[in-house]
Amino acid sequence: MSLIVQKFGGTSVATPERIKHVARRVVATRGAGHHVVAVVSAPGDMTDDLIAMARQITGHPPARELDMLLATGEQVSIALLAMAIHAEGHEAISLTGGQARIRTERVHTRARILGVDRRRIDRELAAGRIVIVAGFQGITDDEEITTLGRGGSDTTAVALASALGADLCQIYTDVEGVFTADPRLVPEARKLREISYDEMLEMASSGALVVQTRAAELAKQYRVPLEVRSSFVDREGTIVAEGTMERRRVVTGVTHDRNVAKITATGLVDRPGIAHTLFRAIADRHVNVNMIIQSVPRPQGADISFTVARSDMAAAADAARGVAREIGAEEILADDQVAMVSIVGAGMISNPGVAARMFGALAREGINIELIATSEIKVSCVIRAGEVERAVRALHREFELDKA
Amino acid sequence: MSLIVQKFGGTSVATPERIKHVARRVVATRGAGHHVVAVVSAPGDMTDDLIAMARQITGHPPARELDMLLATGEQVSIALLAMAIHAEGHEAISLTGGQARIRTERVHTRARILGVDRRRIDRELAAGRIVIVAGFQGITDDEEITTLGRGGSDTTAVALASALGADLCQIYTDVEGVFTADPRLVPEARKLREISYDEMLEMASSGALVVQTRAAELAKQYRVPLEVRSSFVDREGTIVAEGTMERRRVVTGVTHDRNVAKITATGLVDRPGIAHTLFRAIADRHVNVNMIIQSVPRPQGADISFTVARSDMAAAADAARGVAREIGAEEILADDQVAMVSIVGAGMISNPGVAARMFGALAREGINIELIATSEIKVSCVIRAGEVERAVRALHREFELDKA
Repeated sequence: MSLIVQKFGGTSVATPERIKHVARRVVATRGAGHHVVAVVSAPGDMTDDLIAMARQITGHPPARELDMLLATGEQVSIALLAMAIHAEGHEAISLTGGQARIRTERVHTRARILGVDRRRIDRELAAGRIVIVAGFQGITDDEEITTLGRGGSDTTAVALASALGADLCQIYTDVEGVFTADPRLVPEARKLREISYDEMLEMASSGALVVQTRAAELAKQYRVPLEVRSSFVDREGTIVAEGTMERRRVVTGVTHDRNVAKITATGLVDRPGIAHTLFRAIADRHVNVNMIIQSVPRPQGADISFTVARSDMAAAADAARGVAREIGAEEILADDQVAMVSIVGAGMISNPGVAARMFGALAREGINIELIATSEIKVSCVIRAGEVERAVRALHREFELDKA
Repeated sequence: MSLIVQKFGGTSVATPERIKHVARRVVATRGAGHHVVAVVSAPGDMTDDLIAMARQITGHPPARELDMLLATGEQVSIALLAMAIHAEGHEAISLTGGQARIRTERVHTRARILGVDRRRIDRELAAGRIVIVAGFQGITDDEEITTLGRGGSDTTAVALASALGADLCQIYTDVEGVFTADPRLVPEARKLREISYDEMLEMASSGALVVQTRAAELAKQYRVPLEVRSSFVDREGTIVAEGTMERRRVVTGVTHDRNVAKITATGLVDRPGIAHTLFRAIADRHVNVNMIIQSVPRPQGADISFTVARSDMAAAADAARGVAREIGAEEILADDQVAMVSIVGAGMISNPGVAARMFGALAREGINIELIATSEIKVSCVIRAGEVERAVRALHREFELDKA
């Protein structure tokens, strides 16, 4: 008997009707002869509502108590889903992160999973039950409740699938799978039947918010086969797995990210330690930096540009200004009218000239490129925010992604 | 250093402002040099809201999953209260029933407490922290979450006070203490400085809903000194403790209960087993019976009358009708236009004629008594519902309860 882990996000359990819908989906999988472990997020906006409650009490809630509070969200979901499955005539049991023995480090609000003790889940599955596990949460060795941070439910699902040796980990979400581009921007975008872990990772980190980056990394590391599919439409999704040995596709998809701001420090002196001083100051403000580009030093000094999430722009600029004198910067410029477009494809590695084709396609559209960053299977460009749609469509056309 | 357990009900933590108010109360007690363990109920209507959510999923939620769901209510309260105490500059830590090791039997939705392992709480207190424990919930030996049933937070507080050897268990509620009668009915009613456990128990079971009966029983059994006082007004409440050796007061208070319905089975044959058959049938419907009165058999047969909560009247009457033929009943009469008034006082035991004074006072008001039941320290009468106010006032006057 095969085992399938199914993960349902907050929108999938936002209302009683949707919870019943998820219950029928889970029961159908069980009825098809599979063992099922379902991982559920907090319903709808509940996590945000709980955070708002905490903020009404204090601007600085202790992390431990925030975890205690937030963990109730998934506990509500799992109980309701278990009830709905019972109402469908199937045995089900809900387990908190603690009861499922999802062991984490004691780092509140963003704990990493150390391991899973599968005995309780095995016992419940052996008794014929559908097991429902609270996503996003775990427990330390001294019984403290922790949460994994945003998107933690995907991570819970992948960790459980790995620990239980599941045959498949299905991520149910509000999109039908991974597309060659965002269908809202590119009507002819196609759903991909399969992509590799690396492609998934690059797409997730460049704006295609289908599976959380951290979960995709974990899936890659433990070779957990994933399927991304719709909670609402019963249709095959996209399988994320090791790719075929020789790639045919050069470019798999075009992604974009509007949640980008650019900071530039100009006229820097050219001596060791400048970058360290700057990015140490940024990190001290708990700001994540995405791209970092350092220009070739010119007589008037070097520039360093980097991108952050828009909500972090003020903090990042502030941190940079705080060390401006120390790093000899003339100016710190902050710009939130930018966006990032990327092309991703495992076949790029062995195909020179892909980046050049990208730049050419953008140039023909009259789109100026402000920053460029590349990995082995991705090329990203920062452009003006208002040009995102045209850029994505041009790149989708250039690489003929509408053709299977 | 003395230890005080403070219990705050749902209305005391219904809003952020009230939670902050409770936090200041707790911190003030800590500041006065006491160790504090606070026990908290779910905020406001949250328990009812959660039950409503479950009902939207299914009419028959499994008890285990209902406990899983309901336990989130207190978990929200304890986290928010811990945050509010931190914001006041004091160290606090919230503990679920499981983390506080409140061990219960595995009977979901109405588990009894088996014991408390105090080590975790001791450790936190020794570290100088205020400890906040979720009321109403516990954990089984196999890590299943249970709830104690309605009013369970009072029981949690008393159980903790007993296990920790607390010097005092304060029950903060929306009234200022135990009064000689309901002040809404009798303006001259006085707050009692002290009453005995037995009086508290009889008052609680006859309509004075100040402390849950079950918690009062536990307090009596383990000799836990209680104080009932207001969450909103900082004033001494009523101490519940062992009474002085010789009682001065004959009658301590007058209580009333409008949530009463009367069922009568008439013309019963006079043979053994009739009562057993009738009340077995009632019990099978999970209906609690309060008074039971059996008339002296007359030639036309005996009558049995009993009272139940109004919401149980239909079920009780139905059960009685189901066995009417078997017990030879002529008629099953159900009446929800009744109420109960009682006088309670530990001094009654050695004062004959107290019941007679009660009946006389009611008679002078022209109030007809339909049923009478007595215990050693209580006399209760069922009367017409519309006559409750006059009855309570007459009895308060008769026993001069307005005088200290």
